[in-house]
Amino acid sequence: MGPADAETCVTAPCCCCRGSAWLCGTVQRGGGRLAPRRGQAALGTAELVAEQQQQPKQQKQKKQQQKQQGGGKKGEARAITPKSEDFSRWYLDVVRECQLADYGPVRGTMVIRPYGYAIWEGVQSHLDRAFKETGHQNAYFPQLIPLSFLQKEADHVEGFAPELALVTKGGGKELEEPLVVRPTSETIVNHMFAQWVQSYRDLPLLINQWANVHRWEMRTRPFVRTLEFLWQEGHTAHATAQEAEEETIRMLRVYEDFAVNVAAMPVVAGRKSRIESFAGANCTYTIEAMMGDRRALQARRRAPWGRQEGARLAGTSHNLGDNFARAFGTRYLDEGGQLQYVHQSSWGVSTRMVGGIIMTHGDDAGLRLPPRLAPTQVVIVPILKKDVDGEAVMAAVQRLEAALRGAGVRVQVDASTDRTPGWKFNQYEMKGVPVRVEVGPRDVEQGTCVTARRDVAGKEGKQFGVPLEPAAFVQHVTALLEDIQAALLRQARDFRDANIVDVASYEELQAAVAEGKWARGPWAGSDEQERQVKEETSATLRCFPFDQPQHSGTCFLTGQPATEVAIFSKAY
Amino acid sequence: MGPADAETCVTAPCCCCRGSAWLCGTVQRGGGRLAPRRGQAALGTAELVAEQQQQPKQQKQKKQQQKQQGGGKKGEARAITPKSEDFSRWYLDVVRECQLADYGPVRGTMVIRPYGYAIWEGVQSHLDRAFKETGHQNAYFPQLIPLSFLQKEADHVEGFAPELALVTKGGGKELEEPLVVRPTSETIVNHMFAQWVQSYRDLPLLINQWANVHRWEMRTRPFVRTLEFLWQEGHTAHATAQEAEEETIRMLRVYEDFAVNVAAMPVVAGRKSRIESFAGANCTYTIEAMMGDRRALQARRRAPWGRQEGARLAGTSHNLGDNFARAFGTRYLDEGGQLQYVHQSSWGVSTRMVGGIIMTHGDDAGLRLPPRLAPTQVVIVPILKKDVDGEAVMAAVQRLEAALRGAGVRVQVDASTDRTPGWKFNQYEMKGVPVRVEVGPRDVEQGTCVTARRDVAGKEGKQFGVPLEPAAFVQHVTALLEDIQAALLRQARDFRDANIVDVASYEELQAAVAEGKWARGPWAGSDEQERQVKEETSATLRCFPFDQPQHSGTCFLTGQPATEVAIFSKAY
Repeated sequence: MGPADAETCVTAPCCCCRGSAWLCGTVQRGGGRLAPRRGQAALGTAELVAEQQQQPKQQKQKKQQQKQQGGGKKGEARAITPKSEDFSRWYLDVVRECQLADYGPVRGTMVIRPYGYAIWEGVQSHLDRAFKETGHQNAYFPQLIPLSFLQKEADHVEGFAPELALVTKGGGKELEEPLVVRPTSETIVNHMFAQWVQSYRDLPLLINQWANVHRWEMRTRPFVRTLEFLWQEGHTAHATAQEAEEETIRMLRVYEDFAVNVAAMPVVAGRKSRIESFAGANCTYTIEAMMGDRRALQARRRAPWGRQEGARLAGTSHNLGDNFARAFGTRYLDEGGQLQYVHQSSWGVSTRMVGGIIMTHGDDAGLRLPPRLAPTQVVIVPILKKDVDGEAVMAAVQRLEAALRGAGVRVQVDASTDRTPGWKFNQYEMKGVPVRVEVGPRDVEQGTCVTARRDVAGKEGKQFGVPLEPAAFVQHVTALLEDIQAALLRQARDFRDANIVDVASYEELQAAVAEGKWARGPWAGSDEQERQVKEETSATLRCFPFDQPQHSGTCFLTGQPATEVAIFSKAY
Repeated sequence: MGPADAETCVTAPCCCCRGSAWLCGTVQRGGGRLAPRRGQAALGTAELVAEQQQQPKQQKQKKQQQKQQGGGKKGEARAITPKSEDFSRWYLDVVRECQLADYGPVRGTMVIRPYGYAIWEGVQSHLDRAFKETGHQNAYFPQLIPLSFLQKEADHVEGFAPELALVTKGGGKELEEPLVVRPTSETIVNHMFAQWVQSYRDLPLLINQWANVHRWEMRTRPFVRTLEFLWQEGHTAHATAQEAEEETIRMLRVYEDFAVNVAAMPVVAGRKSRIESFAGANCTYTIEAMMGDRRALQARRRAPWGRQEGARLAGTSHNLGDNFARAFGTRYLDEGGQLQYVHQSSWGVSTRMVGGIIMTHGDDAGLRLPPRLAPTQVVIVPILKKDVDGEAVMAAVQRLEAALRGAGVRVQVDASTDRTPGWKFNQYEMKGVPVRVEVGPRDVEQGTCVTARRDVAGKEGKQFGVPLEPAAFVQHVTALLEDIQAALLRQARDFRDANIVDVASYEELQAAVAEGKWARGPWAGSDEQERQVKEETSATLRCFPFDQPQHSGTCFLTGQPATEVAIFSKAY
């Protein structure tokens, strides 16, 4: 049996030294990392033993360091690059240090670790409920799709081939026809819909699927762009074009409601331009969110087999018209006995949303999670001292925990004895837990405790003298959670609004985009001119917002009359 | 654009004529199918139009037929082959007619339709809660695994190659190393565990994953054995062998509790024999259930890359010892600073469980779902008559619906006007809805309604004069649901117990197995003798039950002293 380091380099490039390096960052940058779990995969047995044996000494040094730095609070956050210094590295540091995800052994794949997965479960549970409330049912379609299904569409859309993973061998034999590992399911869904839909009585057909999908990409980033990702894909069929359009808008509004009221992301809902629309769609609608570096989180169109640069759905809804129905013969007999093509919609949200939440709310200290999504909404840290009997403190903590749990609050108690309270404070701050409760012996004597809110740093965010009496305590904490939820949304909205520039000329757009801001102005340019803007500025037309501001009516580029305002920006 | 039939034969063999034919059964058997959606994929446009136009006439004929048959109850169930006549065809009929699943276009794949998926969601929600209550966290590991990971184990276990699906092309290029489409995740999990586990403080590591897996099989059956299936796979790492053993048993007990108390399946929990154990495990524990044809639902061992005949987990828990840890270098530093291998468990339940539920409880009329799992626990059918104003009936129905929903009962109202009440009764009976509520104008006048329980046929299962008053109504229905839950378990347990034969000789075992029963007797045979029994009788050693009955202490085959009783039977 080889040492541990021999185990991690099976696949080249190895997951711990592949350069782009959100896993190896710390190793390269050396010391200063005090977060609880280390990316030590590159160390051999001897080093492991040596490092472990040094721990007591290191802990002592660390303690001294903490003391010097006022409880060590700042000293412990060093593992995360400041956001303002390098946003991209800050993001990768947060993902790694908060144990949200790790690289998988195959380049571009991601292991979603429990804390990251718990955020995704929050997204799932909210959306799944909303889908069911709007009449949708979950189903599951096979992942392997005959390549010929995609080739059927070759006349209509660009080839998806550059991004496909192909199964060519199964059961020890070469397959007669290669199978595509699902990049999206329009083709197989329509293959089945064509069998299930016979009559107008079978419509509407409202289906959703939670699944994994693969798109072969080279430039990846955890959650934002990975070779494999998790998502939901809604697929519906309707009797009329109008019903399909209504459904497309309805589901975009479901996404908007989730983004704003659950994820606290102040998205802009709108329509995509023609060249940014899903290639198989008549029209694509989108929710666009501004990240902490002012880029838009791209929710751009994606032909299921288009040649466009890879992109992940953060929240788009497509009116497919009867395009797929015509390709797959998805027809029904109407009340008059005539065969008609169905009209369809499809819509999706993926694990990219987790990346969006990180990049919308995070700060220099790490994650900040909106309470409605946070896996842990409240952490209770008992302050136990060596010489003082902790029984009264623990009894109080257990009463508070039970009271919160009874009120439906997701609460965690960290009573571990191998870490100091200061270490724990930093840890849960980094992990974005909205509310921390501290209970020490003196607090218990006074019948009170201390709460600290994650969104307001330092003493300002603390409240002393919070009553231990369960009803009053629960009321205080739940109000605090609601307040934090609202504050995160408000902050993100203020940030967004402060970074949207109304432009009246191309020069103004160029200046705004160069500053990293969103540019908003009346637009009547052609597809070609839209592409030109992208080439010259790297900014894409994000959307024509549903809520149109007042405007001059003159296209900022062409000077022609414009009926609509569009938003341009750089995007993920 | 070709007609509908041209769309369904893209992949050979086509999904509607591949012979094994649970989709085509009805077409082959011709008329008599009155269930709402038809497997008409093989019909062309002209036929579709013709059939649609005939419907009014057909409906009239059907009505007459129904009248002749006393409301048409039995007439409508003809689409399902009687269970006693052909259990296998009965099963396929139920899966098709209840719209639980369809074939996918690739041979052996399955589309899980909304009603089937809703049952799986029930399984998921119960198990997921139980996993979390026992301290496990969900995560997600990449589906594509380097082939070399599996090859690492070549010295220790048999090759999995005959069942693997391999991705050899990605992003338009031939891959340097083929990637395996996950058949199970032990290898990639250990690749990550080896990085995550450093010290005894990192243990235990308690992870679960909900995912899809692929195993290339030729002889498939919906839910029971499919090329792709959905499952959960638990993977844990512990500091000591004893903790791993405790975890293995704990999770088997979680499965047992779910099977008995939620799925109403009276399973036998026990230990697998050496040759039936998971090849990478020190010991495999299993829950074994008797299906309606008295076969065991196989929850047998499966080497992740073993050569054994393909099998699907219905509920097994493996103590892996340090076998995988040694292969992948998954080690930790103990409190004394020594490197130690972790001890592991893995455990899984798959969509096979849905097949088990169908085969345990179903009867000639179709599905019978245990209330705790039924997607719809109660269906309310208003009896609306043409000449009578339905307003009072609908108002009463809505009050009942609201009352049940308020009590957490999953209730559905079918007020559609294009089907007769009789048709609906048959439909929900076939779909296994535990309780039906009928409300007609006369009922409303009398302030009562009628309930019918799915598990007791005909008038015996009906209760007249159930009060419409919400509190009393809810109490009646919830008591009925509990009663049905208990009755299904009792019936299944009685059936099982009546079909276990205590054997004292090989001849008695052969006779019992020939009758399709389970044979139970003291066993002290060798591995070779166990294989011999299998070859000669097709019965396998299902398990050594934890609850051992009193026995003679003499092996029924060898006459040698035996300390344990084993169960033998044929299995799925």
